[in-house]
This record gives sequence, C-alpha cells and structure tokens, in this order.
Amino acid sequence: MDKLRVGILGATGIIGQRLISMIESHPFLEVTSVASSGHKSGMTYGSAVRWLLPEPLNRKYSEMKLIDAGRVAELAKECDMVVSALPSDAAGLERDLAQFLPVVSKSSYNRMRSDVPLYVPGVNEDHLDLIPHQQRVNGYKGFVSCDANCSSTQLAISLKPLMDLEPQSILVDTMQAVSGAGYPGIPSMDILGNVVPFIQDEEEKIMSETKKIMGALDRNNQSILPRSIDLAARCSRISVQDGHTETVFLRFRRGVDISEVRKALEGQRNLNVKERTYSFPEKLIVFHSAVDRPQPRIDAWVSRGMSVSVGGLRESGGWVTFTTVAHNTILGGAGGAICQIEALVKRGII
Amino acid sequence: MDKLRVGILGATGIIGQRLISMIESHPFLEVTSVASSGHKSGMTYGSAVRWLLPEPLNRKYSEMKLIDAGRVAELAKECDMVVSALPSDAAGLERDLAQFLPVVSKSSYNRMRSDVPLYVPGVNEDHLDLIPHQQRVNGYKGFVSCDANCSSTQLAISLKPLMDLEPQSILVDTMQAVSGAGYPGIPSMDILGNVVPFIQDEEEKIMSETKKIMGALDRNNQSILPRSIDLAARCSRISVQDGHTETVFLRFRRGVDISEVRKALEGQRNLNVKERTYSFPEKLIVFHSAVDRPQPRIDAWVSRGMSVSVGGLRESGGWVTFTTVAHNTILGGAGGAICQIEALVKRGII
Amino acid sequence: MDKLRVGILGATGIIGQRLISMIESHPFLEVTSVASSGHKSGMTYGSAVRWLLPEPLNRKYSEMKLIDAGRVAELAKECDMVVSALPSDAAGLERDLAQFLPVVSKSSYNRMRSDVPLYVPGVNEDHLDLIPHQQRVNGYKGFVSCDANCSSTQLAISLKPLMDLEPQSILVDTMQAVSGAGYPGIPSMDILGNVVPFIQDEEEKIMSETKKIMGALDRNNQSILPRSIDLAARCSRISVQDGHTETVFLRFRRGVDISEVRKALEGQRNLNVKERTYSFPEKLIVFHSAVDRPQPRIDAWVSRGMSVSVGGLRESGGWVTFTTVAHNTILGGAGGAICQIEALVKRGII
Amino acid sequence: MDKLRVGILGATGIIGQRLISMIESHPFLEVTSVASSGHKSGMTYGSAVRWLLPEPLNRKYSEMKLIDAGRVAELAKECDMVVSALPSDAAGLERDLAQFLPVVSKSSYNRMRSDVPLYVPGVNEDHLDLIPHQQRVNGYKGFVSCDANCSSTQLAISLKPLMDLEPQSILVDTMQAVSGAGYPGIPSMDILGNVVPFIQDEEEKIMSETKKIMGALDRNNQSILPRSIDLAARCSRISVQDGHTETVFLRFRRGVDISEVRKALEGQRNLNVKERTYSFPEKLIVFHSAVDRPQPRIDAWVSRGMSVSVGGLRESGGWVTFTTVAHNTILGGAGGAICQIEALVKRGII
Repeated sequence: MDKLRVGILGATGIIGQRLISMIESHPFLEVTSVASSGHKSGMTYGSAVRWLLPEPLNRKYSEMKLIDAGRVAELAKECDMVVSALPSDAAGLERDLAQFLPVVSKSSYNRMRSDVPLYVPGVNEDHLDLIPHQQRVNGYKGFVSCDANCSSTQLAISLKPLMDLEPQSILVDTMQAVSGAGYPGIPSMDILGNVVPFIQDEEEKIMSETKKIMGALDRNNQSILPRSIDLAARCSRISVQDGHTETVFLRFRRGVDISEVRKALEGQRNLNVKERTYSFPEKLIVFHSAVDRPQPRIDAWVSRGMSVSVGGLRESGGWVTFTTVAHNTILGGAGGAICQIEALVKRGII
Repeated sequence: MDKLRVGILGATGIIGQRLISMIESHPFLEVTSVASSGHKSGMTYGSAVRWLLPEPLNRKYSEMKLIDAGRVAELAKECDMVVSALPSDAAGLERDLAQFLPVVSKSSYNRMRSDVPLYVPGVNEDHLDLIPHQQRVNGYKGFVSCDANCSSTQLAISLKPLMDLEPQSILVDTMQAVSGAGYPGIPSMDILGNVVPFIQDEEEKIMSETKKIMGALDRNNQSILPRSIDLAARCSRISVQDGHTETVFLRFRRGVDISEVRKALEGQRNLNVKERTYSFPEKLIVFHSAVDRPQPRIDAWVSRGMSVSVGGLRESGGWVTFTTVAHNTILGGAGGAICQIEALVKRGII
Repeated sequence: MDKLRVGILGATGIIGQRLISMIESHPFLEVTSVASSGHKSGMTYGSAVRWLLPEPLNRKYSEMKLIDAGRVAELAKECDMVVSALPSDAAGLERDLAQFLPVVSKSSYNRMRSDVPLYVPGVNEDHLDLIPHQQRVNGYKGFVSCDANCSSTQLAISLKPLMDLEPQSILVDTMQAVSGAGYPGIPSMDILGNVVPFIQDEEEKIMSETKKIMGALDRNNQSILPRSIDLAARCSRISVQDGHTETVFLRFRRGVDISEVRKALEGQRNLNVKERTYSFPEKLIVFHSAVDRPQPRIDAWVSRGMSVSVGGLRESGGWVTFTTVAHNTILGGAGGAICQIEALVKRGII
Repeated sequence: MDKLRVGILGATGIIGQRLISMIESHPFLEVTSVASSGHKSGMTYGSAVRWLLPEPLNRKYSEMKLIDAGRVAELAKECDMVVSALPSDAAGLERDLAQFLPVVSKSSYNRMRSDVPLYVPGVNEDHLDLIPHQQRVNGYKGFVSCDANCSSTQLAISLKPLMDLEPQSILVDTMQAVSGAGYPGIPSMDILGNVVPFIQDEEEKIMSETKKIMGALDRNNQSILPRSIDLAARCSRISVQDGHTETVFLRFRRGVDISEVRKALEGQRNLNVKERTYSFPEKLIVFHSAVDRPQPRIDAWVSRGMSVSVGGLRESGGWVTFTTVAHNTILGGAGGAICQIEALVKRGII
C-alpha cells in the first residue's frame, strides 16, 4: 500500500518536530512536505529548525525546503492531508486548506466550532462522523478536524471511565511542563525553582473543551451537544520539562465507593481500547496503586508517551481525588494527532 | 527588661536553625539552650549542625553544648520557656516539660489534643486562653501550646477573611517546597524536574487542623469546638526550595461577588493585624492583582517571610479560586512560633 | 550634603532594577532619571518594567517617566552622572553622553578601549586615574569608565592576592547563573536540568579583560599596559538562578606551598579593603575551609552579594585549584558599579 | 546457544537496576540471581527495590529472592559469572567470589590493584589479557576485573584519540549528575538550583584511574605500567538528573592544529570500534560542530546512552579545549560492564 502523504504545518515547533520524529517509523504515513508560517519559507528544514529532540534529525527531513503554509495549491498537490501545528494566529488558513484536503489540527483556532470534531483518543472517535456534514455544508473536498488541548486530552481520558457514575462536581488543578509553552516559551528566570500560577486561556480551554469532548453527537451526525458539567480548572506552570500533572477532585451525585472508581479506572471502562489502531497504546490508562505515583519524570514516558497514568486515588473529605500524568507533546500533542489520522483512515473518512 | 530565656528543642533541624537565626536580633527573646533528641547531646552546636542558612552561624551559638532534650530539670533551670521543633516521635516529652515550663511546639504530636491551642498568627489568638484550663487540669506550672502545620497556617490565614461569607465547600491543592521535608528530606533523584503527588499525613493534617483553627473557644475557655467545614485537600511536593503554593477552590452557600471576596482578602478582614506584636508583619495578606502572582521564588520572601501572598483571584466554573504562597519555614515555621510567644507574653500567659 | 543625582540607562533590565533597588537606601546617591533604549520611552517605569526582585518596586520609581537614552541634553540637565546598563548594541551613545557628564558603564561596548578604565572593586582603583587623560584628549566634560564583566570581576578578585606569587598558567571553567543572560534570556526548555557549554563572547571577555584589569597604569596616567598572563577560559550556563561558580586551576613558576596560597586568599593580600567605601564589603574574599563550599545558592548572598567566596582550595596533580562563587548581578553587576561611583567620588574625579 | 547466567551483586542500587533492565533483551546474557549486601536478603527483589527507571520492572525479576552477596557457594552454583555493583565497603568479598567464578566489578575497591584490569570500552581491551596471570598467581578459577569510574571512562574515551599527539598537560573540570551519587544520594535541599563543588574521592579516582587505563600491558601480560600524564581534576555536582559534563583543557608538547584534534576525535582514532561487540555503539565518540553542544539533557541519551558526545572544540589562550557528555549510569555504569563481559567472551576469557 502506498503511504499516505502528510504535510506538516508549523513544522519547526515542538509539536511539528515530534510529528516528524514519530511519523518516521509509521507503517502507512510519510511526511512529504514541511511548512511554516511566514519568514522561514524557502529555507531548508535543517537550517530553520532548532531541533530539540534527543534523537537526531534525519537528513531526509533536514534537506526538505520549507513551504509557506499559505500556499494551499502546492500543499494540495504534494500531500494527501496535512497536520497543522500552527500558532493560533496563523491557523485561520486551515479552513482554506480544507477546501482541498483533510486538515487534522493541533491548533486551538477551530476547536470550538460547532461543525468541527474535537478528538481525544479512546474517548470520542464517533465525533469524527460529524465530518461529512461539515464537508456538505461548506462544499469542502477536505475538512478540518481538531485535536483537543493537551490538558483537556489528559483530563478527558481520566474522566471518561467515570462519567456514568454521574459526577456532580469536577475540579482540576494542573501543574504543567514547560514544553507546553513551545519554544522559546517561558524564560528560565521565571520558572527555575518556581511556580507560575497562570497560563493564558488554559483554564477556559479545559472547561469548554471537556464539555464538548464529553458531549453527544446528534442522530443525524450534524452537531455535538456539549455535556453540562460542573467543572472548574486552575492551571500552573512548574519546573518540569515534559509531562503535565493534574490533581482531580470529584463529587458524585449519589454515594460512590472508592473501589468502584478504582475498578472503572483500572478497567479503562468506556475507553475504546479494543479496536485500537497502530499508535494507540495497549492501555490508555495505566493505574498505580502506589500512593506517590504517578510522577511526570517517570510516568510521562510510559507506553512511549501515549498513556495517561492515574494514581493516588483516595477519598478526601467526601471527595474522590486522584492525580494524573501524561506526556503533553506526545499523547497531548503529536501522538494524539497521529491517532486521529489512524481513526479517520479506519472509519474511511480519509 | 531582662530577655526571656528560650531553649530550642530540635535545634539542629531546619526550623531550629531558623529559630536561632530569627531570635538573634529579637528585642526581648534570647536563646540560652539548644537541645536535640538523642545521640548528638554533648557535642557543640556548631559541630552537630549542618547549617543550611545563608547568614553565617554566630559563634555564640556554635559553641553552645547540645543538651539531651529529655533532661527536663536542666532545661527548666536554664530557660524560661522552650520552643520544640522535635520530630513527632520525640515530641512525647513535651508534656513532661510542661510540668515545669511553657512549651511552644512546632511538632504535630500534641496539635489535636482538646486541651491544647493550635495557634495561627492573626487568626485565633483567643484560643491561647485555653491554657489556664490546661494548667489547672494537669497541674502544670508550664503548658504546651502548638503552632499549626505550615500548610494549614497558610490556608487558615487566606480563609479567615472569607469565613463569614459562609463557604459551602473548600478544596485545596498544594505544591510544597522541599524544605518542608526537613534535612536530608527528599532525595534529589526523586524531585529534580519532577512532582511527587504525596506527602505523608499532610492532607489529614490540613483537614483536621483547619477545622480546629477555625473553631470556637467555649465560654469557659475550656475547650475548642471545631468548625464544621466541607474541606478536601491534596498535597504534592515539587522542585522548589522554599515557599509553599496552594490552589484554593471555594463555593459559597449564597451568591458571592468576586469583588466582595477581593475586598475581604485585600482588607485582611477578621485578621488581627492591628494589635500586632513585634514579629507580626504589617500585612498578613499581601494581595496581588497581577494574574500570574503569587510565585514562591519571589513572594515567599515578602515581609521577611511572614506574609501570605494571595492572587490570581478569579471565578472559574462557578467556583471562586485563588492561589496563595507563604514561606513554610518562616511564617509556617520559626516565625509562627515566635509570633505565638509574643502573643503569649502580650496576653500575660508567659 | 546634596545627594548625587544618578540617571540609570537600561533601567528596565536586571542590572537596572538592581541599581534602583540598591541606590534607594544609599547615603549620597539618588536615582533621578530612568532611561531605556527606544520604544519604551514615554511610558512610566512601573508599566514598562517586568520587575524581577522580591522587594517591591517603590512607587517613587514606578511613576517616573522613561526617557529615551539618546536624549543626551535632557539627561545632562537632570543628572550629575549616569550608570549605563544598556545592551551592547545601544551603548554607542555612552561616548556622546561623556561629553556632558560622567558615565559609569556596565556594558561591554567601551571596556577594551585604551583610554577607558576597567574597574574591579578592590583590585585596580588606581586605573580610574586614567580618566583625566581621557577627558583632555576627547575634550569631555564627563567621561566613560567601565565595570568589568561579572565573570571577570569575580576571577580578578580571587586572583589578585596571588599575582605576586607569579602564576605561570591560569585556567578557569565557569558555571554561570541564568540571571547573567538578562531577561528573557535563556529559555527554560534549554536549561532546566541541563548544561549549555557556551556563552557568546564570554570566554574572550574573561581572557582579555583580566589581562587589562591586572595591567599597570603608566607613570603619566595615560594608558594601561595589559599584563601578560597565560590564561584560558571555558564558560557554561547551568540551572542556577543567581551566582556564578568558577573553578580555577593555577600553576606557579616556582614551587608554591598551598598554605601560602591560603594565607594570601584568606588575608585578602593586595586587595584594597582598608580604605573601603560605603558599599564595599568588609571582606572582598570570604574564605571557606569546608571542602564542599562555596555553593551559589548559599554563598552568592554573603555580604549582601558583595563578596567573592573562595573555597575547596587543594593541590591536584601539581596544580593549585579552588572554587569561587559571587553574585553576578550584585558584585558583578549593580554593586560593582556603585562601588566604582564611590571610588570616583573618593578620588575626587566626580 | 545457552545464555550466560549472570548474577547481579548490589542489585537494588541504580547500577543494579540498569543492569537488570539492559540484560533483559540481551542475546546471550540472562540474569539468574540477584544479591545484595546484608539485611535485604530473603526478600523478593520487587519488595526490596525502589525501582527508579521509567520502564516497568519485569515480574520475572520482581519475584526473584535476594541472596546475601556473601553466599559465595550459592552464587557459584546458580551463575556462570557475577557483575558486582556493591558499595565499596562491601566489595571485599569480590576476591572471595573470584576463587569460583568471574567477577566484573563496578566497585572502586579493586580498581587500582596491579593484577586487576581497569576496563574502558574501546580504549584498553587488551588489558583484559592480564587476567590469566591474576588467575595463576592467586589460584582462582574465576577472576576480578574492574570497570572504571564513570567520570574516568568518559574522560578516557575522549582522550584516547589524542594520546599520540602527546598532550603535555590535561585538566578536567566535571559537572556531574545526581544519579552518580546513588539513591538516596544527595538531598534535594543541597542541590536544587545549586552547585556542590566537591565529590568524595572523585578527583583522585579520575587522576589515578586515567593513568592506569592509558597504561601499557607488559610483554608477559603480567602487569600494567601506568602512563605518566600531567593531569589535574576538579569535580562538582550539579542539578542534572543523568549525564556527566566534562570540560577538558589540553596543552600539547608540540604545536597542534585544532583541525588535527578535530580529525582525531571525529574519526575516533585509536578507539577500537571496528571489532565492536553487541552492546558497543557504532560511534563511541559523537562529535558536534555546534558551539553549544553537547548538553546532558539531550546528548546523554545518544546511542541509548553508550556514546561520549564531544563538542565545543576550540582554542582558548593557547589551550585546546572541549566539552564532553556521557551517560553516567549507562556507558559509565551498567553498559560499560556489559561491554566488558562481551569483550571477555570474545577474547575467550569467559
């Protein structure tokens, strides 16, 4: 089988780098174009990128010429689809591209549009069936489909097994890694041995995205009805390289035994892990009994960065509480996008 | 006036060191004895201590002989009172000492006893009036009075102005500095660039202590009635040297405007800062309007480590949320104890 | 006595902030103008600066209007002198200012010019006597006089006591704090838990500056003859907030006993500490016998950041080796400049 | 072929853990026994170990019973050889074991004995031919052969290509990772955002070991003549998890062009990489042209932790200088030992 030709928009950023690195060994995807917004176009990828991964950049990519991400026609010719990791302010062109070819986007720009799926691996694959409607209405040959924010992705996977226990209130407090801010991102003087208790727009994203992710596709596959959840979020940046940590507090409408919660999490209830595709981990949730796990330095890397580690499950003052860790630029970044492509192929949408 | 002669139990630990350093320039306190549990007794303080503070250890202290903390008679002779920063498993002897002289304790051992005050600066000075009852019942010449845990102290100060707004639910998620674990404490391999989402007994301490601190002394000054609060806590250790950060979520019984909360916090409502004693900061709460403050590396040191910095106040999904920072070994450690001594002197109890 | 009116150029940077903070309590200096290069002029200082110090910014300064550093006439009117902490590419205007008023510069731009002193506290105050010659030749009413680079300053102070033991070879390897790169400086993703073994131009600065600092002023006070030293330097950036650490290797022409080196360092031989001015520490060198000192987190702050801590002195394979720590933005930054002003006043040059 | 049965002494430490993890997928080695010194014997490995690696501990090992490392007969029965990662004070029993079976040791205890090889991959495989002599003289059925210290290993590999250029003086200054101190090792309070400029015995080890490693085996394979080198070392611990960084200064007897040095390093001159065994990396030295490499967070992991990265090669004040990075618990730990076993098998000594 010929490989699917993938273009990477925003190829020089952290997510772009991870995409290139992860697709390199993929059985049916290959990167055929790299694009960036603006002034770097025309340069070779190798000279334009500040390569941040431990594995060396393959010469095949370093010699590719960077295309301007706005050159829609060129991209449509060279690629069967694109993954966009463009910054939000450049992501407006995703819909231009959608006229010609599929766009899977890591950008927040289109996430909350009613005709755009907001995909989280294992949680809401069925939302991808919204795409034909988007194509019809807009007259697109392609489409735009979004990945959720890294923090929302991690939260949604850890909550999915518990949603039918009917949580009444959900609170999440995050401790996020610096790689989530991109490069150069947060200055070292601000974060070394410190906590910055604010991340622009992050709390709003978690709250609105989670409701959409947990929402229901209507019968006609024409819209997603957000789920009504009493959900509050606080976000901090801490001095960790990779891997977000989330503290979750849950109160249930009816009495819920902690062992029931454990069973649901450990058993990955309601997570679609059986029909998993190539990049999907065997376990989307890795459950820890040890009281002091998960920890980002260790657990962000489990399943090559594709699982959410959940642990420290305990009752506290009438609340069910636990901690989760996931890799923000793999599961919550490049890996999530690759899973989405695989799901789109499996469903015949690409 | 002659200075009050203070003995330090657990003098070689972090809190002990801070006590010695802070009392050095105190107008009416002086350290006359240093004691430790066990095998170090007989050594000079200078040879027994691993001095961790930037200011050098004064020769006056380095040449003092360490007494065994169990030598009650000797301590009673050399000191007018003692501050105990003993580890919990050695703090049993605090009540032996109480027969002879006042003991202000940083240890958790006696905190939850019904006849022992659990002091937090500015919050519950009146609880110290429980002491005469303790003395009568036990036939003590001295007494035991406790300081709260560092995390509870910080939380109680930030909540006190809001208690008459009647919070229905309070949740706190902490990000605690490594100095809170004492020395040697947490190994660097466990915490560098990492989060450890568990601190032994800490969540229980926060929940039970806060209820006692916010409780009411009965009319006869014979007991403290803990306040019933819907309170849950989660605690993590992070890669920060000094200064705990706490994320607080609050829901109120009746609608509360965020500006009302701000006014209460900024105005230090219900905090006893007017009759403040020598070591008391001008403002127990330093309020920040900037969205990205407070931060431990910067704000733990405000007012020489004696204030709680509060900021990032915002409404999130129907919850009132904010972040606090305080210095865990100053306000939440040595400084809190010194404030308590001053309050005891002011009230004529010492 | 009226205070000397000081203008700060580059006032919003780290060194500028430290200057403002340190001069606030100075007995005969006061900050009367704040200036920056370019687009911030016209803003109030408080709105333009990202204040990075734990002590709060005094309202007196926050309400000052930022002047464009190029407005020479205005500065000459409002100030008796200026301290320049401008970035190198903007420091060209220092010589324009010198026509009208004294300029003490932290910038590297003019450091190596033959008619400009390169001052290090305690080491080469006599070089300031070069200034009258500079004024005559250029027809300046004022002058330009430079402070050395932070790493050079620290090295020069630690070497000065040893120069008459005639070192044959000197090697220095630095581990430098992130605050040395200014703000935003080095991205957290590059330095968290990492070492970056390169700092632009730093090794060249250390080598050339040290030779000039150790050089001799000729009899007519018209030039400085750099000292010929076999000196090599390597520089790395590490994950430390404040305080540079330097490893020094020395080989002497003739046999030198390690105790002789110790005596010279401990005794601060040849350092001009007796006629010290206001900001000068009692000891420019604080000598440590403990094998594992000095350490930047602890020792950078000794003498309020104005001393060089030296320790770990030992013979290794025929080389004399030791480690030094100093505060790069105090002694090696704002504090060094203030010492220079005091020396200029003492010598009657200002 | 049956796999060689390997016992791990000191199995619960960091090196022991890495050995177990690396041997798990080895084509001709298998771990059949785990042993520790003292009080843990009898426990299962899973309950005794604090597992620090991201990859989970295989159940096969977690259920093994820990043997007391002193039970020589038992080990001799269950294993064809042992790898010792015992602490120095327990390593005395290595020679008891040598009576019965081969011992490859990571401990420093026997390193400097004249009849013991001190192996570094690619550098001095021929020294292993000393073993028959050791066996004859002592009447051993087995033998003891040592791996060098992590810092010495890294230094020796980077120097080997340059030794025939005849360096006159060599100085090395290290910045070492916390994992080198074992677990619990260095307390977080000592090293967070700090430098500790001292590591017990480390400088002496580097100086004496390097001379032995670079030494020559005599014609009769009966002793190693240490090479006379003018070598000095300084060692610091820094806030890095894994990967030691070394700054090297070299002066050559005759003029040496920097390009000649580069050619030797880049070409891995004199390193035995052609006849490499299974665990040997393709390149023992990975050379970087970028001025700011190598960096431990990125480069320690190249070739799965088995290469020395060398970069920042430049002339400085008449000295040739460069920086190296290697993984201290892989190349300088478990991986080095596995290479030695492979070399011993290849040479027919095991």
